[in-house]
Amino acid sequence: MVKISIAQRVLAVNDDVAAEIHAQLARRSIRCINMMSSAGAGKTSLLEESIRRLRGRLAVGVIEGDIETTADAERIAAAGGESVQIVTRGNCHLEATMVRDALSQLDLDRIDLLVIENIGNLVCPAEWKLGEDVKVVVASTTEGDDKPAKYPQMFAASQVMVVNKIDLLPYVSYDLQRVKEFASRVNPALKFFELSCRTGEGMDAWCDWLVDFAAGGKD
Amino acid sequence: MVKISIAQRVLAVNDDVAAEIHAQLARRSIRCINMMSSAGAGKTSLLEESIRRLRGRLAVGVIEGDIETTADAERIAAAGGESVQIVTRGNCHLEATMVRDALSQLDLDRIDLLVIENIGNLVCPAEWKLGEDVKVVVASTTEGDDKPAKYPQMFAASQVMVVNKIDLLPYVSYDLQRVKEFASRVNPALKFFELSCRTGEGMDAWCDWLVDFAAGGKD
Repeated sequence: MVKISIAQRVLAVNDDVAAEIHAQLARRSIRCINMMSSAGAGKTSLLEESIRRLRGRLAVGVIEGDIETTADAERIAAAGGESVQIVTRGNCHLEATMVRDALSQLDLDRIDLLVIENIGNLVCPAEWKLGEDVKVVVASTTEGDDKPAKYPQMFAASQVMVVNKIDLLPYVSYDLQRVKEFASRVNPALKFFELSCRTGEGMDAWCDWLVDFAAGGKD
Repeated sequence: MVKISIAQRVLAVNDDVAAEIHAQLARRSIRCINMMSSAGAGKTSLLEESIRRLRGRLAVGVIEGDIETTADAERIAAAGGESVQIVTRGNCHLEATMVRDALSQLDLDRIDLLVIENIGNLVCPAEWKLGEDVKVVVASTTEGDDKPAKYPQMFAASQVMVVNKIDLLPYVSYDLQRVKEFASRVNPALKFFELSCRTGEGMDAWCDWLVDFAAGGKD
């Protein structure tokens, strides 16, 4: 009992900080994505490729969450994005206070869109708000098409689902129709993108959506 | 501060229950594996294929951890294994008390080896003992070869690492040597298997190891 009430209080404090972050970004007309997935679904590769393609159209800032290493922030910077790394040293999800600290190190005048790349974990990050406008869950075709049924909280909490690595469809047992049915069952309003960062298939539609989404924050 | 001390107490209680489970299994000469991975790395497929191949050589019991659905226990039963499903309803890892409850529903006289398939999560399960003799981490070639550097606790806590889906190596950027170097850096004693449940490559060595490992529990 005690454990639960403390957890609830921690979540409530987190939500307050998330609301502050959201207000801070909204004042600058910056929209924010909380990107989540299982470990290895390809979030960083998707962001690298998106940033490269959006150069000149949209300035993307990225807050990179990782348990250890700063490799991802370096990859984002190399692709041309503004980036800050949060290293959680064991924590399995990002919390709003971590994002608040990271935000103070980003030059917000230089970005149109902020993406927070969460820890690779299809469970715990789902319940922690970070000040985002939307949650995007990235699922890969190599993970099995039953994931929305087995990890429903993540798919219920998200507004957008990206199916990544569609170039591997010929080599794996993965039914696109089936995964969408499972996902729609837990979240009928979920919007889908299917793409491959490696071949570029589907990247245009995704990048166009990012531009439209970011523009929605402008007056 | 309060939060931390409660978490430590919860872990200590968990370790006591895990020790009870370990003793209970040891009395029956049953050895136990705690199998962990990111979501979608292929733990259930690996167990299905192992159980099929080991029929007549080794009787495998499986405790299936899932957040929702009982699909995995049904797959294990169809492959010929004794199985019990734990549905955690949101919890991101298995705890020893859950395993103790599940054990009471398994006919231990009918099994030589117990495998606990943990929740698909490369972070949280690492610190919860379940009464196992060894922890096995399953990594797939589609997740990227940097995972041991980014999720070091899991690889440090495990004794065995299975690289699954090696049939997909021609289609992904994954360097087997590199992943082993990363993994060996956090855990120099880690034992490796490379295999594909789909093609069967590497399955013989893995199944032989399971037989030897299970025999180690016998007098």
